[in-house]
Amino acid sequence: MRAGRLLSVGRFAVLDTPEPEPEPGEVLVRVAHAGICGTDRHLLKGEFPCRPPVTLGHEFSGEVVALGEGVSSHAIGDRVACDPNIACGGCAACLMGRVNLCERLVAVGVGRDGGFGELCAFPAHRALHLPAGLSLRDAALAEPLACCLHAIDIAAIQPGERVLVLGGGVIGLLCVQLARLAGGEVMLATRSPHRRRIAEDLGAETVADAAEARAAWPKGADCVLECAGVAETAREAPRLAARGGRAVILGVMPAGETVSWEPFDWLFREVSLRTAFLNPFTQGRALALLASGAVRAGPLVTREIGLDELPAVLSEVPGPSEVKVLVTA
Amino acid sequence: MRAGRLLSVGRFAVLDTPEPEPEPGEVLVRVAHAGICGTDRHLLKGEFPCRPPVTLGHEFSGEVVALGEGVSSHAIGDRVACDPNIACGGCAACLMGRVNLCERLVAVGVGRDGGFGELCAFPAHRALHLPAGLSLRDAALAEPLACCLHAIDIAAIQPGERVLVLGGGVIGLLCVQLARLAGGEVMLATRSPHRRRIAEDLGAETVADAAEARAAWPKGADCVLECAGVAETAREAPRLAARGGRAVILGVMPAGETVSWEPFDWLFREVSLRTAFLNPFTQGRALALLASGAVRAGPLVTREIGLDELPAVLSEVPGPSEVKVLVTA
Amino acid sequence: MRAGRLLSVGRFAVLDTPEPEPEPGEVLVRVAHAGICGTDRHLLKGEFPCRPPVTLGHEFSGEVVALGEGVSSHAIGDRVACDPNIACGGCAACLMGRVNLCERLVAVGVGRDGGFGELCAFPAHRALHLPAGLSLRDAALAEPLACCLHAIDIAAIQPGERVLVLGGGVIGLLCVQLARLAGGEVMLATRSPHRRRIAEDLGAETVADAAEARAAWPKGADCVLECAGVAETAREAPRLAARGGRAVILGVMPAGETVSWEPFDWLFREVSLRTAFLNPFTQGRALALLASGAVRAGPLVTREIGLDELPAVLSEVPGPSEVKVLVTA
Amino acid sequence: MRAGRLLSVGRFAVLDTPEPEPEPGEVLVRVAHAGICGTDRHLLKGEFPCRPPVTLGHEFSGEVVALGEGVSSHAIGDRVACDPNIACGGCAACLMGRVNLCERLVAVGVGRDGGFGELCAFPAHRALHLPAGLSLRDAALAEPLACCLHAIDIAAIQPGERVLVLGGGVIGLLCVQLARLAGGEVMLATRSPHRRRIAEDLGAETVADAAEARAAWPKGADCVLECAGVAETAREAPRLAARGGRAVILGVMPAGETVSWEPFDWLFREVSLRTAFLNPFTQGRALALLASGAVRAGPLVTREIGLDELPAVLSEVPGPSEVKVLVTA
Ligand SMILES: NC(=O)c1ccc[n+]([C@@H]2O[C@H](COP(=O)([O-])OP(=O)(O)OC[C@H]3O[C@@H](n4cnc5c(N)ncnc54)[C@H](OP(=O)(O)O)[C@@H]3O)[C@@H](O)[C@H]2O)c1
Ligand SMILES: NC(=O)c1ccc[n+]([C@@H]2O[C@H](COP(=O)([O-])OP(=O)(O)OC[C@H]3O[C@@H](n4cnc5c(N)ncnc54)[C@H](OP(=O)(O)O)[C@@H]3O)[C@@H](O)[C@H]2O)c1
Ligand SMILES: NC(=O)c1ccc[n+]([C@@H]2O[C@H](COP(=O)([O-])OP(=O)(O)OC[C@H]3O[C@@H](n4cnc5c(N)ncnc54)[C@H](OP(=O)(O)O)[C@@H]3O)[C@@H](O)[C@H]2O)c1
Ligand SMILES: NC(=O)c1ccc[n+]([C@@H]2O[C@H](COP(=O)([O-])OP(=O)(O)OC[C@H]3O[C@@H](n4cnc5c(N)ncnc54)[C@H](OP(=O)(O)O)[C@@H]3O)[C@@H](O)[C@H]2O)c1
Ligand SMILES: [Zn+2]
Ligand SMILES: [Zn+2]
Ligand SMILES: [Zn+2]
Ligand SMILES: [Zn+2]
Repeated sequence: MRAGRLLSVGRFAVLDTPEPEPEPGEVLVRVAHAGICGTDRHLLKGEFPCRPPVTLGHEFSGEVVALGEGVSSHAIGDRVACDPNIACGGCAACLMGRVNLCERLVAVGVGRDGGFGELCAFPAHRALHLPAGLSLRDAALAEPLACCLHAIDIAAIQPGERVLVLGGGVIGLLCVQLARLAGGEVMLATRSPHRRRIAEDLGAETVADAAEARAAWPKGADCVLECAGVAETAREAPRLAARGGRAVILGVMPAGETVSWEPFDWLFREVSLRTAFLNPFTQGRALALLASGAVRAGPLVTREIGLDELPAVLSEVPGPSEVKVLVTA
Repeated sequence: MRAGRLLSVGRFAVLDTPEPEPEPGEVLVRVAHAGICGTDRHLLKGEFPCRPPVTLGHEFSGEVVALGEGVSSHAIGDRVACDPNIACGGCAACLMGRVNLCERLVAVGVGRDGGFGELCAFPAHRALHLPAGLSLRDAALAEPLACCLHAIDIAAIQPGERVLVLGGGVIGLLCVQLARLAGGEVMLATRSPHRRRIAEDLGAETVADAAEARAAWPKGADCVLECAGVAETAREAPRLAARGGRAVILGVMPAGETVSWEPFDWLFREVSLRTAFLNPFTQGRALALLASGAVRAGPLVTREIGLDELPAVLSEVPGPSEVKVLVTA
Repeated sequence: MRAGRLLSVGRFAVLDTPEPEPEPGEVLVRVAHAGICGTDRHLLKGEFPCRPPVTLGHEFSGEVVALGEGVSSHAIGDRVACDPNIACGGCAACLMGRVNLCERLVAVGVGRDGGFGELCAFPAHRALHLPAGLSLRDAALAEPLACCLHAIDIAAIQPGERVLVLGGGVIGLLCVQLARLAGGEVMLATRSPHRRRIAEDLGAETVADAAEARAAWPKGADCVLECAGVAETAREAPRLAARGGRAVILGVMPAGETVSWEPFDWLFREVSLRTAFLNPFTQGRALALLASGAVRAGPLVTREIGLDELPAVLSEVPGPSEVKVLVTA
Repeated sequence: MRAGRLLSVGRFAVLDTPEPEPEPGEVLVRVAHAGICGTDRHLLKGEFPCRPPVTLGHEFSGEVVALGEGVSSHAIGDRVACDPNIACGGCAACLMGRVNLCERLVAVGVGRDGGFGELCAFPAHRALHLPAGLSLRDAALAEPLACCLHAIDIAAIQPGERVLVLGGGVIGLLCVQLARLAGGEVMLATRSPHRRRIAEDLGAETVADAAEARAAWPKGADCVLECAGVAETAREAPRLAARGGRAVILGVMPAGETVSWEPFDWLFREVSLRTAFLNPFTQGRALALLASGAVRAGPLVTREIGLDELPAVLSEVPGPSEVKVLVTA
């Protein structure tokens, strides 16, 4: 079968590979749609640990075409979305229920072959059934949405609170929707006019940057969601929080890079800074929200490509009007 | 009466002042014991906002000797401890129940005359009755303990968790006791051998600094309580937290001073950093804990002085074996 | 001035009374709109403790016309809504921040003269300023909304959860709106076709009763909000909760009346039952939600009457198409 | 090998059975100590669903003697304690992280062969490694302790709170220890003088029943832990809670049996009633608490028997001085 594989740092190609076979407890899935994520680009550049050669793609949906030994939870033809993060169940973190912090975490599409291929095999319990009415296309957004849902849980937004989202990529625009859904009055700071329009269609106010956000909400936001992963937004996030407010960081900054923050300011205004990593126990809820229409994937999918276009798209910097690109079978 | 007053930045003296009279809703208290706090030294140096001339002293206990108009909650002779923080009740923060963030907060002993005098008048509802069996001397520790209790609430320690306390002053040693009481396995990092001994008597393990703490607990602490208020411990606090752990800052660093932190490290280990400011709704609980003996004030009171010694003591740097100094009537 | 006063149990009349004068710390308010609440009927029948003679009315808005001594937070002409519950600030509950459980709670319109009169005096900090753009009429709904907001805080609804509201009175219809705002998928059970229509306009699905709710959601609701205050809905509430779900009771059943519940069922499904009483620290948020339009008072106000009609309206049973009746100046 | 097996409702015998072999992903454990639990007696009487024939015993420790295919987390000779509850990982509850509510939960010693035999095979990730210094004997108490820890998490005890435990069996005496560890002031109500003594040695006050508890604490307990599983204690639990307090039910009452409670009383005092079922994500913490000595198993093990004595012991009613009986290899 054809698969888009990372061969070594800097080398990504679509080539023929043997078809995977499901191990005991696994399902074999024919991939329908697979999203390209910033992490894929980080993997290509070697900025994120992984052991090539490996088929990338960790945000995908598809149909079950074969069952490994002992799988009774699924049937051929089932429509599923992959939750790529496989926790071991037995390490200290897993035993505490902190599965996203599993010491032996393996991610489909990072630590083992993923969804940028025609077929992908992975544990049945990570193949979540699509709720009735959810398209395979929208289901490809479930993984990033689940990460945002985890952040929203940590943010603990109360109806009526002011929520400021920094960064208008997929993560930012999903957070905009979730914060609205949680009853927040939402503002997005993004440099891209195109993304501003999408956010406004989704019910948010928009500003160009932190300075404009400060002008619009001089008392700050009850909750700031950092979704850009750059030093500037990270530094601003707690400063833009209101007295008693909180900032949640989702954006991934480079390892080792530091940010200067002022503890006095945080203490006297009793601001907290939290972080949200991956999608523990949120993937099923993400699928339900996409199925009900409470969160909309449609406006975020700005382009669909074939597998053969993937190497070129992965190597280029996404344009300012690009949000989520799907590889469609 | 005699009172220790801040006359202007840098000038503190004990002198004769008119006796205060209780306004409607206030009680007049004959001060028994009043603790000296780092904040008093900050006020003296002008590092903390206040409007001199004013009688300092915000940690004190005493006996009610007169009642303002309309006070029915207290009687002459009642033994009370002062909760110095008077929230307005009507600002945005107060309306949300975040009284420690009150926009019009006035503190007895900072914004109005406090407990370094023979008598002090303040609102009756801030004069908390001493539980049976609690000495006026121990009750003078209720205010700092209440601040620590607020931090422990925010820390949300579960029985069996590892708790690392940075800084062995009064705040650190009270946090040691509270973290033990909450079921934590507690380690204190302090440079002072004298303070190590106190902490060990209180049931904690001790180390000299962050490096030793890291060696002792290589996986980090579930909760780190920063109680020193210096850049080094602030920087270390989240780094010393275990995967999924949290750091709580109580220490007050100078306004404007920054600390360099690494967001990547926080995100991938899902560490959060919280702050705890003042004593909202915790002063009554603090008194109860002192009364039951669950928290011990005794080992922390290293010296008692008369009012006349106060100017000298305030102006000197406390020695390494000093913890809490009380001004005793 | 004219005022609607409870003279003794069973006797309510509109008559001339002396104009109140604001005590120190109080404001005098010219009442604009005052809502009639089920509690007013309970007071009339003697089913709820109160010390007549007293002017009833605890849900009201108006304009400040005079200031008591020492009031600097308000000015003549300010538009305000009354938070009727005055906590003492000094009892054990108040010291813990549980102000709704204050041991000396006094409610305007219950324990002291309220808003069914031309003028009403009460503490300035209980006179909340109306946000810009909020009408005095809508502001009269702030008190019941604040009670519902407290319940929603306790319910801790996550986006996407199923929420079932039992009872379609004012409380039920406000809870419908708040649960929707919190991201819930909401169903209201009400016997009244008129109330069903209002709820549907507000975005909820509707059913006639618990049996229909069970048929519609066989796995139950993540959260059930009991807003009727009768034994049948109380009994059903935890049974209608899904595995791991929770029921929150707002409805006030008669003192002494019991309900039979099955602990085994709760335990094996890990269902909890919580209660929500009054409006601690939520009145300001309620006003903000009304002002932003996030919660709509309009569809719930089914009738406006003059003060003189009040005795008749209070003594009759409200019809099935009645939701909130306002007394308008 | 010899094993104590439930053959059908009412029939339990120790007999020879084939030695189990570990499936892929499983470990084979030589059982060292296995606790007898009230549930075992319920299973014998048919009061709890299970499919005989099956080897009972769900609270046990032992040594790994063989590894199924693909097990790399364990080695021969490892000392482990079994967490008997195997969640499927893929059902709606598991996907939400509510593993104790798994729709396909299978318990070792209930739904499949357990620890009342010489050997037992079960999934490696349910074989938790014993921390250094923990004896196999004490480790046999980890499962009930983990259930209590879950309840204590739900109870959310703050240092200094009053905690009342109803019922002095193993669950009650473990809750006593955990509530003390969480900083609570603890009282146990038990009819047995023998159990009173144990509780007093563990640092609790004791009373004979609810009436005495009410007399001792007229304002009630901040938290009541119901650990008896009978109607009387269930009915009393929320009544014995203080204003704003909470009751947590751990005791298992018979299915279908109801209790009469008064909603008005709960609402006006804002009392909540929660339930705690099984041991989700708490077994590892339970082992750590036993290892550190923070919780003591010793005083609770009142008798050790051989496998051959098991049928007789299981069929008799435990005496008033019996707490936990272990079957020791
Ligand atoms: N925590 C988690 O579990 C998790 C999961 C998935 C992704 N992530 C991280 O979340 C972040 C966002 O992901 P994404 O997929 O949305 O990425 P994306 O589509 O590349 O969006 C990133 C956004 O960051 C903003 N940005 C980039 N550089 C900036 C700069 N110098 N100044 C200001 N803003 C800048 C841009 O916003 P504007 O163009 O709108 O200004 C851009 O749209 C990434 O760091 C990603 O690694 C985290
Ligand atoms: N958040 C609140 O509500 C609240 C309330 C009260 C006080 N505070 C703050 O909490 C902090 C502690 O108060 P305190 O009364 O305990 O003060 P303290 O008695 O002066 O103790 C401060 C401790 O910080 C440590 N420390 C000081 N300089 C250090 C350095 N350069 N490196 C490492 N450690 C250093 C010292 O610990 P060792 O000698 O043990 O090494 C010292 O004992 C202060 O910043 C105070 O302003 C906050
Ligand atoms: N917890 C608090 O802080 C708080 C605050 C305010 C009010 N309350 C209480 O909340 C409850 C609702 O208040 P409200 O102002 O909305 O009262 P309401 O307008 O009288 O509405 C009560 C609703 O309960 C339902 N109901 C009454 N009898 C019923 C029966 N036998 N079977 C089924 N449903 C029945 C009716 O719903 P349908 O006609 O739609 O079927 C009715 O609309 C009252 O008990 C009130 O005292 C509590
Ligand atoms: N929720 C969970 O996850 C979980 C886990 C394990 C067990 N459980 C349940 O927890 C309960 C306690 O378990 P256990 O192992 O401790 O049982 P146990 O050793 O049999 O103790 C039960 C205690 O309940 C008290 N009791 C029994 N009948 C009573 C009555 N009529 N009136 C007053 N008290 C009575 C007795 O206390 P005194 O003799 O001291 O008065 C007895 O010691 C059981 O229902 C069990 O099924 C629940
Ligand atoms: Zn793991
Ligand atoms: Zn205020
Ligand atoms: Zn009070
Ligand atoms: Zn499951």
